[in-house]
Amino acid sequence: MLKVTQHLFVFSLLFLGFVQCTSNTAQNNTSATTENTLDTRIIHTVIFSLKHEAGSPEERQFLDDARTILTAIPGVEEFEVRKQVSQKNEYQFGFSMKFADQQAYDKYNQHPEHIAFVEKRWKKEVTDFLEIDYEQMNLQ
Amino acid sequence: MLKVTQHLFVFSLLFLGFVQCTSNTAQNNTSATTENTLDTRIIHTVIFSLKHEAGSPEERQFLDDARTILTAIPGVEEFEVRKQVSQKNEYQFGFSMKFADQQAYDKYNQHPEHIAFVEKRWKKEVTDFLEIDYEQMNLQ
Repeated sequence: MLKVTQHLFVFSLLFLGFVQCTSNTAQNNTSATTENTLDTRIIHTVIFSLKHEAGSPEERQFLDDARTILTAIPGVEEFEVRKQVSQKNEYQFGFSMKFADQQAYDKYNQHPEHIAFVEKRWKKEVTDFLEIDYEQMNLQ
Repeated sequence: MLKVTQHLFVFSLLFLGFVQCTSNTAQNNTSATTENTLDTRIIHTVIFSLKHEAGSPEERQFLDDARTILTAIPGVEEFEVRKQVSQKNEYQFGFSMKFADQQAYDKYNQHPEHIAFVEKRWKKEVTDFLEIDYEQMNLQ
């Protein structure tokens, strides 16, 4: 009788583990499927040039600080620092980030850390820039 | 004795299922981690305006045809048709695509279908545009 009870106990543990594990796998698969559908987030990008010499510590410091400060602001998703490599325009760098919706984007713009970054760093170190925002179009 | 054998059989089946399931979950987690690492592909973007009336069938036809023609060219990855929504510039739309490397990008530029699209459609229907290309920077 003891042996059967032991078997039942181990059986139950494994069964629960299996159910939990299957549930996790199903969740992961759902995420993967979601990624393939239209992303409704707002894509906010800016291309810009810096007053600093190319490859200088000051240039690197600006990019590092921008990333640290801006990624800490709530609502900022998929922040990327990019080198602009087309010879068909003069800009050197780009930032790209995504916001869930206009409300999240507005909150970012109004956030004290964003305003402070623009006043203390952007206006002093950026020589030229262009903001471009996108929403994906559903042509299906 | 028969009961114990039955228990062992069910136990073994569940154990194998659990091991397989755990293995799948581990693989999914690995994929997720890979997605977070630096993407070394070239991001090719263009923002543009069309001569067509906003919301017209001609506008839609251009966007549809561009997507059909350009996504069929080898090497084009993650092609997106985007509406440009910032009021800080005058452009109406954007295309974004990725290439594995410069060679794939060059092949796209030289592809007969790309050249034909530029000559027959782009030059006739696009009134203004700016090309911007990026590579992600690794600031770690």
